[in-house]
Amino acid sequence: MNLIDGKATAAAIKAEIKAEVEDIVSKGGKRPHLAAVLVGHDGGSETYVKNKVLACEACGFRSTLLRYEDDITEEALLDVVRQLNEDDDIDGFIVQLPLPHHISEQKVTEAIDYRKDVDGFHPVNVGRMAIGLPCFISATPLGILTLLQRYNIPTSGKKVAVLGRSNIVGKPMAQLMMQKQYGDSTVTVLHSHSANLKEECAQADIVIAAIGRPAFVTADMVKEGAVVIDVGTTRVPDATRKNGFRLQGDVDFDAVAPKCSYITPVPGGVGPMTICMLMLNTLAAGKKQIYS
Amino acid sequence: MNLIDGKATAAAIKAEIKAEVEDIVSKGGKRPHLAAVLVGHDGGSETYVKNKVLACEACGFRSTLLRYEDDITEEALLDVVRQLNEDDDIDGFIVQLPLPHHISEQKVTEAIDYRKDVDGFHPVNVGRMAIGLPCFISATPLGILTLLQRYNIPTSGKKVAVLGRSNIVGKPMAQLMMQKQYGDSTVTVLHSHSANLKEECAQADIVIAAIGRPAFVTADMVKEGAVVIDVGTTRVPDATRKNGFRLQGDVDFDAVAPKCSYITPVPGGVGPMTICMLMLNTLAAGKKQIYS
Repeated sequence: MNLIDGKATAAAIKAEIKAEVEDIVSKGGKRPHLAAVLVGHDGGSETYVKNKVLACEACGFRSTLLRYEDDITEEALLDVVRQLNEDDDIDGFIVQLPLPHHISEQKVTEAIDYRKDVDGFHPVNVGRMAIGLPCFISATPLGILTLLQRYNIPTSGKKVAVLGRSNIVGKPMAQLMMQKQYGDSTVTVLHSHSANLKEECAQADIVIAAIGRPAFVTADMVKEGAVVIDVGTTRVPDATRKNGFRLQGDVDFDAVAPKCSYITPVPGGVGPMTICMLMLNTLAAGKKQIYS
Repeated sequence: MNLIDGKATAAAIKAEIKAEVEDIVSKGGKRPHLAAVLVGHDGGSETYVKNKVLACEACGFRSTLLRYEDDITEEALLDVVRQLNEDDDIDGFIVQLPLPHHISEQKVTEAIDYRKDVDGFHPVNVGRMAIGLPCFISATPLGILTLLQRYNIPTSGKKVAVLGRSNIVGKPMAQLMMQKQYGDSTVTVLHSHSANLKEECAQADIVIAAIGRPAFVTADMVKEGAVVIDVGTTRVPDATRKNGFRLQGDVDFDAVAPKCSYITPVPGGVGPMTICMLMLNTLAAGKKQIYS
């Protein structure tokens, strides 16, 4: 069994990004600049945004954090988005989700100029990914694809079981893995209504678990030698921890790991790759690599 | 074995559309207006466009056919698209593909206002479909979904094998069938690089063959009682026919049909539904049902 070290891979990629940025800047080019919009004081969102700002520093990017109270109106937030769209100094930006209930996340997402949409959530980027055109690919699926590539795990023709069909992981992951230019795999998407979920999963060469149910994938659902990627991060109570909880993945790691050829841990697997891929998208935005 | 009659279903839907259009017009509403742009004199394209114009008549729509020689420049064609985008009288329009090699089909497709893109090929519509938002769904996948619905074929939780991963059939079909609000199925996408294509196919409750290889799906690839949808339409030489060819589907119909609970014939299955769904999209465009 080989552990896929997302933390080390992310660190290596961030170092590569930083080297490229310094090279660009030394040649008179522009330092990539990411803006993040944070509404309210949700604990999780605070942490994510803080980590994104820190990742920008690690990569040699400029970053700007725009904070608003959770009583900001939808129209005012849309104005912020429009200003960021028009600001030539901002290469890419994100609006941290979730937003307060009185604001339509979809409306805000669609208001972002797709050429600055480094989260890859705008329908134009989602659609271009589906068709196989250059685009910003959302961070979690791109991070998983990158881990598979960096660990030289063969995917072409392999059976991939994607557990979960969310818009931010399951569906884009399936689309990437089935495309010739990315995974070139035989993809099956499994979900809560799937009749033979366990049997399908047990046939897969690669299992990507993004179903949001702690320790859902048990040893009987994984075949000998499979590759298991765990996207789950549920907080479960743990009295032995200082903060009172630990992160539990969608995979029953201790039971499943011995059967695997490769497996990602939680934490330290897919998680660290996500912010790293946002940085890669920001670098691409700064270089106008995808859209001119 | 039950034959799925696409021709009769399409005729019924067109009659429903016509009734709705006459109702709209009788109440002072606008008659839906579809424009079709045809470049050059490709025989297949001529036939398709002619049939689209005839379908408009059957549905009570106005239609406008814009013809250009195949030496039209890309810029001139893009100008045509822009004029159609701005013409308030045109509710939806299509640019018949393929286009001559000197014109980028992607550039033309992206130039179409997505709110008039009744073919559903614009990245905004492709992306919105992937996320599960209201959009124009492209005609062939929508036609297949409609056939399954009209024949009351259960899809929720069923295993669906989609053969082929093209942008116009395989990929959108997979996306529709996996979504809770449409097929809610367990979808596996099979293609030329799939290691266990035959075995996967033989496990499926519903087989959707869109691989473009005549009679590719043989009896051993289909389980007893399966539903088989044949999207293939390859012209194969046939000396017994007046025009020297017949249309052959992706399914070896005579051998497969006895095993099926339902099967579509070729011709007369999926084919007639495709233009019919274009009409349904045009009606939706006329009613501003999806985009205001």
